[in-house]
Amino acid sequence: MNKELLSVAKGNKPADLVVNNGKIVNVYSGEIYEGGVAVCGDTIAAVGDVSYCIGENTKIIDAQGNFITPGFLDGHIHPESSSMAVRNFAEAVLSHGTTGIMTDFHEIGVVSGLDGIKAVLKEAEATDLKIFFIVPSHVPFAPNLETSGGHFNPEIIREALKLPNAVGLSECVGPYILEEHEELLESFDDTLSMGGKTLQGHLPAMYGPDMNACVAAGVTTCHEAFCEQDVFERLRNGVYLQMREGSSASNMPLLLKTVMENNLDTSMISIVTDDLHTVDLYERGHLDQSLRTALSSGLDFVKAIQMVTFNCAKSFGLEREVGGLAPGRRADINITTGAEDFKVLTTIAGGRQITDNGKMLVHYEAAQHDSCLLNTTHLLNPITADSFKIHVDKDAKKAKVLCMDTLPYIPFTHRRDVELDVVDGVVQCDVEQDVLYIAQVERHGINGNVGKAFMGGFHIRGGALASSVGHDNHNIIVMGDNFEDMAVAVNRCIEIGGGQLIVKDGKVAAEVAYPICGLMSDLPLDELSEQKKVLNQVAYDMGTPIRIPFMFLGFICLACIEDYAITDKGFIDVKKHEIIDPVLELLK
Amino acid sequence: MNKELLSVAKGNKPADLVVNNGKIVNVYSGEIYEGGVAVCGDTIAAVGDVSYCIGENTKIIDAQGNFITPGFLDGHIHPESSSMAVRNFAEAVLSHGTTGIMTDFHEIGVVSGLDGIKAVLKEAEATDLKIFFIVPSHVPFAPNLETSGGHFNPEIIREALKLPNAVGLSECVGPYILEEHEELLESFDDTLSMGGKTLQGHLPAMYGPDMNACVAAGVTTCHEAFCEQDVFERLRNGVYLQMREGSSASNMPLLLKTVMENNLDTSMISIVTDDLHTVDLYERGHLDQSLRTALSSGLDFVKAIQMVTFNCAKSFGLEREVGGLAPGRRADINITTGAEDFKVLTTIAGGRQITDNGKMLVHYEAAQHDSCLLNTTHLLNPITADSFKIHVDKDAKKAKVLCMDTLPYIPFTHRRDVELDVVDGVVQCDVEQDVLYIAQVERHGINGNVGKAFMGGFHIRGGALASSVGHDNHNIIVMGDNFEDMAVAVNRCIEIGGGQLIVKDGKVAAEVAYPICGLMSDLPLDELSEQKKVLNQVAYDMGTPIRIPFMFLGFICLACIEDYAITDKGFIDVKKHEIIDPVLELLK
Repeated sequence: MNKELLSVAKGNKPADLVVNNGKIVNVYSGEIYEGGVAVCGDTIAAVGDVSYCIGENTKIIDAQGNFITPGFLDGHIHPESSSMAVRNFAEAVLSHGTTGIMTDFHEIGVVSGLDGIKAVLKEAEATDLKIFFIVPSHVPFAPNLETSGGHFNPEIIREALKLPNAVGLSECVGPYILEEHEELLESFDDTLSMGGKTLQGHLPAMYGPDMNACVAAGVTTCHEAFCEQDVFERLRNGVYLQMREGSSASNMPLLLKTVMENNLDTSMISIVTDDLHTVDLYERGHLDQSLRTALSSGLDFVKAIQMVTFNCAKSFGLEREVGGLAPGRRADINITTGAEDFKVLTTIAGGRQITDNGKMLVHYEAAQHDSCLLNTTHLLNPITADSFKIHVDKDAKKAKVLCMDTLPYIPFTHRRDVELDVVDGVVQCDVEQDVLYIAQVERHGINGNVGKAFMGGFHIRGGALASSVGHDNHNIIVMGDNFEDMAVAVNRCIEIGGGQLIVKDGKVAAEVAYPICGLMSDLPLDELSEQKKVLNQVAYDMGTPIRIPFMFLGFICLACIEDYAITDKGFIDVKKHEIIDPVLELLK
Repeated sequence: MNKELLSVAKGNKPADLVVNNGKIVNVYSGEIYEGGVAVCGDTIAAVGDVSYCIGENTKIIDAQGNFITPGFLDGHIHPESSSMAVRNFAEAVLSHGTTGIMTDFHEIGVVSGLDGIKAVLKEAEATDLKIFFIVPSHVPFAPNLETSGGHFNPEIIREALKLPNAVGLSECVGPYILEEHEELLESFDDTLSMGGKTLQGHLPAMYGPDMNACVAAGVTTCHEAFCEQDVFERLRNGVYLQMREGSSASNMPLLLKTVMENNLDTSMISIVTDDLHTVDLYERGHLDQSLRTALSSGLDFVKAIQMVTFNCAKSFGLEREVGGLAPGRRADINITTGAEDFKVLTTIAGGRQITDNGKMLVHYEAAQHDSCLLNTTHLLNPITADSFKIHVDKDAKKAKVLCMDTLPYIPFTHRRDVELDVVDGVVQCDVEQDVLYIAQVERHGINGNVGKAFMGGFHIRGGALASSVGHDNHNIIVMGDNFEDMAVAVNRCIEIGGGQLIVKDGKVAAEVAYPICGLMSDLPLDELSEQKKVLNQVAYDMGTPIRIPFMFLGFICLACIEDYAITDKGFIDVKKHEIIDPVLELLK
């Protein structure tokens, strides 16, 4: 029992910090009223009239009549998607009022296993961001269809569930539940047998009996809602609706419209970002930006704040720790403007003032990274232009090919059959038809696999893009209109220990290095954002209409998003869960 | 993992039971829509369109267009107050749509310790009522001021917290928290260190710093709200407001008025009964009756249902188990009429149909009670008329006495100074002034204590009332206008192994026996109710205006309700937490 906290609450000892002269946005009672918050150490001691908590040495923050809200929580985010080392990431999101996140560090697990995740959790301890760890339920997603650095089994998951910050199991995949995947259900039982831990769902396009089975298995949240029906399918089944408003998927506006038009109870609805691109984080913000969008659609101010605080905490059973302004909760406090032109002015996280009217007051030095996070790009065989060629019968003149096309606004792939030339027994890409070569090169030094296929929707001409960020295995994904640039790109990506880059005419045209797991950089947000903007601009100049081409590219290898994917093992038919030949037929 | 449940949810196996053709009251989405519920064993497999779950052997219950709600939950009730053995109690509340309760069986603990509670939990297993056990935090309330049969210390509490159904710590008393009572705070730490368990508060008249300290210590519910301010004090601090609507305290109407007039968020509000008198349970009902009252005040139907289902479950972190209609939840289902003239028609508990359109379908045989629950009334010394006399100086003619008066609508006591005659050195009662003798006789065979004082507010003439139900020690409380009847009453109460009775002119005028712990009867509800009505009627005929005189009497010995109490150790000044002399001054 924290007796110092009791003393401050009782008025026997002054608070360390008092925020006063504000309007409390009370996420419990649904009210807004005048008051303040008193803090002891990292914990709230009193809310409302806290004048009795002020002593000689109490630090006072004057809210100047602005709103006082709980610090914001993102219930489903992969910090790795921001390409930032965790300390920089923490600094960036804290500056936008996010004081806690729920994350699985799945991508780090894919590259460096549980040791990698532990190392990053340790790095994060130096920051003021509260991290609740959700144990990844599958690393990698499809062990039969891809090669990863880290592998999770039920034993490793049990070990991870015992980590002090572990609050549940992450990304519990609908189709695996329906298949009654034995190891997954074993981990479900392990999680639920540990009091207070939850199963976090990944349940795209689950309806009726399918959804019923997932909920019956114990899943209580889902961030994969896309349409009106998805809203009902989740809420009516008692599943917390995590409306996603991130860089790779912006589902919130439509979902929120459904909620508001049908006057649905909002107490089980939160807002999450899932994946947040560096430039979006830099230029737009985090949950503060989602709130601006939500508020502009007419959502009630208190209800909106509940969606990024209390409702999120409840969806994990963490409402006694975070997500509200009440004694005993972590002292995560924002001072904000009102619904119109919403802005977070000042943030306090764990009792420490992070920003003062927009000015950043803290800085976290880069960590000395654990060796398991570094030097993670290893080729077993040399990569040359030949590595990417799809060979067919030398006599063939043309090939009918299954090209996968991405949608321009979300990296979902679908089938397009095309006819391509065959030259000397090698199937050729065709930029006129928007058909590029795409491949994934195993980079964990395990088997030297290269998977190959054809890609549409990116509209790239005159070069190659390569990236060591490729879900759910983080091998090197490479796409281009010529084999030579592709080879240069992959080799350069290996050389710099991972990153994202573009090669034109044999030369690097733009490059961002990710020395940490091949996923993340130690650069501060502004510099990293600048580099990534240059990278994007070069891609735009090569013809792509996609706003965040590298983030899209990184999802093309994800063997759980329909309809197709490319991994180091080959071209994947996601529905069938098998490797297929992209060449359908040869024409002589 | 329950694979049979998954099979039914997926549609691969027919449901055992389907309720169809109803209107689902969805406590998650806040909607009402047409649909049904499919059940596998004791668990819900599907909700909504469940036609796919119907097979040849599926039992069908036609809701005939009525409403389908989750089974009701009472988050704070002491079944012992109904005077019924737990199986009869279960049968009684199930017949009114209550499918789960959260209870501490505190009274049984006071008489027979943890062994007694375990024995009762075992008896309850034969019923369909789901019992969540909240471990009593203090048995008895005031060890220094009263003698009890059972005693809890932190070690016993730790043992109890490990029982399979244990969900938290009960009746965490505000003033003890403020005192930083060492053993209590140790038990707080024990409870909170076990994932998912909660601290259930008993925080009467706690405001500002006092309430802040209790909440900072981790308390998350409270059933002791009486006035408008209490509503705000709880909800604003993130404390679940349990609006009490029971036999000894009916706080709900006023609290609900505050909630509705201020348009407060209702998601943290539930309805509880705390203590429910046999006759009230028989003639009015349980939470169905509370709902009728709430609905008649204009509360929205879905919000009202949420208050006795989902909101209650949430207040214990049990929303993944009970409190809603969703796959994976216990199959606790009510079919009800609408808001007007609200009635529960049919109840299903744990998948078993309990009632059919008001007709009871189940009956639980009386248990063979464990020996620790029987023969619990033992006197150490004989009790005679002399036992109750308050002796003063023989020369005194009159005595100025502190008489405690109960309020007529709630058993709260306050001070009234009166002048009484002294005859042969014995202070006399005075029915003209409504001053009776009151005493408590130790009955656990420990020390033979008799505590004595003066009582007002009951307006009894011509006899004595005795009861082995007396919070928080369950010694024999006796009150009367003459010592002889009081002695007869106490001796008879011991003779029958405990109970409640009235003696007039040396003879028993009415009597109800409680052979189980001196607290409970094995009679069925109708017979017990009839006996208790007779008991009450005799008391009314003796002049009392109090509707439930014995329940009030049982609270006069509670050393935690201000301002005064009587225990076996003497007359208690509750605020000062000490034994005082009721005789203030002798007049010669």
